[in-house]
Amino acid sequence: MEIRALPVLERRIPVYEVLNREGLEMIHEAALAILEQVGIEFRDAEAIQMWRDAGAEVERYRVRIPRQLLMALVAKNPSRFTVHARNPERNTEIGGNKVAFAPTYGSPFVYDFNNQRRYGTLEDLNQFHKLAYMAPAMHNTGAVICEPVDIPIPKRHLHITYSAIKHSDKPFMGPVTAPERAEDALQMARILFGDEFVDQHTVVIALVNCNSPLVWDETMLGALKVYARANQSVIVSPFVLAGANTPASAVGSVAQLNAEALAGIAFAQLCRPGSPMIYGHFLAAVSMRSGAPMAGTPEIAFMNLMIGQLARRYDLPLRSSGMTAGSKMVDAQAAYESIQTMWAVFLSGANYIMHCAGWNEAGLGASFAKFVLDCEQIEMFHKLGQGPQFDDLEDALAAVREVGPGGHYLGTQHTQEHFQTAFFMPELLDNNSFEQWELDGAKDANTRGLEAARHLLANYEPPPLDPAIDEALLAFIREREAVLPDKMD
Amino acid sequence: MEIRALPVLERRIPVYEVLNREGLEMIHEAALAILEQVGIEFRDAEAIQMWRDAGAEVERYRVRIPRQLLMALVAKNPSRFTVHARNPERNTEIGGNKVAFAPTYGSPFVYDFNNQRRYGTLEDLNQFHKLAYMAPAMHNTGAVICEPVDIPIPKRHLHITYSAIKHSDKPFMGPVTAPERAEDALQMARILFGDEFVDQHTVVIALVNCNSPLVWDETMLGALKVYARANQSVIVSPFVLAGANTPASAVGSVAQLNAEALAGIAFAQLCRPGSPMIYGHFLAAVSMRSGAPMAGTPEIAFMNLMIGQLARRYDLPLRSSGMTAGSKMVDAQAAYESIQTMWAVFLSGANYIMHCAGWNEAGLGASFAKFVLDCEQIEMFHKLGQGPQFDDLEDALAAVREVGPGGHYLGTQHTQEHFQTAFFMPELLDNNSFEQWELDGAKDANTRGLEAARHLLANYEPPPLDPAIDEALLAFIREREAVLPDKMD
Repeated sequence: MEIRALPVLERRIPVYEVLNREGLEMIHEAALAILEQVGIEFRDAEAIQMWRDAGAEVERYRVRIPRQLLMALVAKNPSRFTVHARNPERNTEIGGNKVAFAPTYGSPFVYDFNNQRRYGTLEDLNQFHKLAYMAPAMHNTGAVICEPVDIPIPKRHLHITYSAIKHSDKPFMGPVTAPERAEDALQMARILFGDEFVDQHTVVIALVNCNSPLVWDETMLGALKVYARANQSVIVSPFVLAGANTPASAVGSVAQLNAEALAGIAFAQLCRPGSPMIYGHFLAAVSMRSGAPMAGTPEIAFMNLMIGQLARRYDLPLRSSGMTAGSKMVDAQAAYESIQTMWAVFLSGANYIMHCAGWNEAGLGASFAKFVLDCEQIEMFHKLGQGPQFDDLEDALAAVREVGPGGHYLGTQHTQEHFQTAFFMPELLDNNSFEQWELDGAKDANTRGLEAARHLLANYEPPPLDPAIDEALLAFIREREAVLPDKMD
Repeated sequence: MEIRALPVLERRIPVYEVLNREGLEMIHEAALAILEQVGIEFRDAEAIQMWRDAGAEVERYRVRIPRQLLMALVAKNPSRFTVHARNPERNTEIGGNKVAFAPTYGSPFVYDFNNQRRYGTLEDLNQFHKLAYMAPAMHNTGAVICEPVDIPIPKRHLHITYSAIKHSDKPFMGPVTAPERAEDALQMARILFGDEFVDQHTVVIALVNCNSPLVWDETMLGALKVYARANQSVIVSPFVLAGANTPASAVGSVAQLNAEALAGIAFAQLCRPGSPMIYGHFLAAVSMRSGAPMAGTPEIAFMNLMIGQLARRYDLPLRSSGMTAGSKMVDAQAAYESIQTMWAVFLSGANYIMHCAGWNEAGLGASFAKFVLDCEQIEMFHKLGQGPQFDDLEDALAAVREVGPGGHYLGTQHTQEHFQTAFFMPELLDNNSFEQWELDGAKDANTRGLEAARHLLANYEPPPLDPAIDEALLAFIREREAVLPDKMD
């Protein structure tokens, strides 16, 4: 089966801004005030020493960062950089008006091919990585799309990373659950790309979450230090459950989130000036009734749009979270929530959009059906981002003259010549007549999604990988597994 | 049960524009060229005479309209006006930065409470009108949400109009299937509001479709003349199946649509200068594979955004079509499509957005479940349109200082004070845990939508209507039914 691949989107439509300059500056100032007056905790002895040496005010783990220091460090972060793939055609530019889409991340459960929700396995993860490889508009294979719970935790990162490398030739994401695991992933990248290449190029994106409010913990900082010092990319992501770990205010939540992201990026620049960090965040709003995280609400839209303006203010690449949903099925709820969030994220100008395929149940469940349905929706965003085409306006007017009042266009030469590209034709959305749809089995979108995923996997062909490299990767895994325990301490 | 009602939205977030000035003028010029060179048909003898008298070039039904004449007539159309409701609190401002939402329109089938698709009845229509009355963000009761096929066609308009008047106190829409039927609806409006009031105020919005490409037919023109001469509002709507009755080009389709809409509005100004027309359109893209209409595609988004810019260029109120879908179920497809379209429509600056609740199956089916689910989504757009609130930023920062790193906000005084308004909490989207959701019956959104609609209808209380007026309306219907046939000629 031929693999279609869309390049990283070069967005040719404008960003959408909800804040005027004054509002933007108010949030910026609020974030600086938080870092200067309240401070933020870096729960890592080395990090604290680095901040002290840099001139911040340190009180145990609490760091108060003067604005000049903060902004000088943030300014060292590159605005644009490239994440290299083992297939150079899949290299991913990050920043500016580029937009890359990536799958969901971190679900313990899968919604499987039997419509069952169960714990994920390595076989599930292999399949998700294959689907990410075959999805035209996915620009990253991801990492732990679902948790392979059949693999012991201390060894899991090796198999996750190998699966992403083996089953796809797109860039992949690196583990962050311990500094040693980040080192293992880097070692695997060196086997894949060569030592020298990895020293000089960014080949891994890793996702490091802030324990909001205002805590960077030792585990996350450990991974961040490893990647930043190796000049690899880290998405520095406050994990916001707005209203629970931020104030019950959209602008207040964004101010805190902005403080957390800037502090993390500034710290990465202490680790290695110029290291390629991405301003990140995960956003859910919390139901004040049940405490449950919510997706697709108007405040999530606002917050995403405001964060986009902030990232541009600092000239930083931005990661956001796209097709998020809280549903426990691939039903109308899942889709309402996903697209409500995605439009705001897309128009915010985000450069690296995660959770674009498969996310459900507030991230607890990765769905095969939703994965492929979402991928088609993302292909539509990819086309949306290219903007309307004007080059055929003259020809189209000629067709109007030819057809005239009361005619029809389906048989005209203009239509024959343009029908392949004029209008996107989704394959997983059924637009046939009711009668035809009934004849076809009266299937809902979830059923069609599962069928499409099955079909893709049945026709999967792995991208070529040098057998010597493959064997070296497997040998490294064996070597590491021999010394790693099966259980956590 | 207390009825919540949200005012017509005063949009405080910017519109979103995909065209630069040059692109906008290219489409404008293309539309003028179509009307000057190709012309447009007005298949009505009186209309043709009116165009001839006005100075257009007439050749049988074909009218070629010089740009000066066209733009002079279009300039007579008001930019803003008010549609009056029998409850003055429900009066609807149309135009400027106001946004009103209205339900779906014209479906022969309903997706009923037993999850069956069947022909609609008057009882179904009554129920839809009750639901529109009870939906906080619906600003119009609509008209023929579903076709009441149990009523003979020549008498149907009487019962549709009565149902809308009786079951809701919001503005309603008028019939257009014949000029006499439009007159009947106006007569019912006079009974409701008084003759003098109707002479001086707009109380009805009617939807008149253009037979694209470039044909205004006698039936539609007949209704348009009746309403325009009575100073009532007509949505002048090209009915675009892009690629089938327009060129296979997004900008070409918009150029033709623009020509059709402007010609219709100009004609209404010949009927009565200053009559309150709305620049309208219905948009679907056609699958070049199957010929089926499609919703939620990127070109529909572009076209909506471009049309918004055109309407503003002419300072005309704009009607668009929001939550459109082609699915045959209330599944993920229906929701993907609906929100994909709605975001573009919303950001286009549309003032009167139809098909915001219940639309499915490319308009052939009106769904009770989707009606109430959509209404909640529209409430979220209503909040989105109000923009982020800054008035609590200082308080929110005080909460950040109080909580500090590693704390939590749920119990703080700030959260207690703001939780009701800070984050929208959808009631029809389930954000509980998987376990709680299972305990609650593992329901999909369609099931919850049907339950919510049943609950609303069980608790429906009619808005007060003067019994003398009610009796006069019923007497008028009896009188008209006595002379109208049961079958069409």
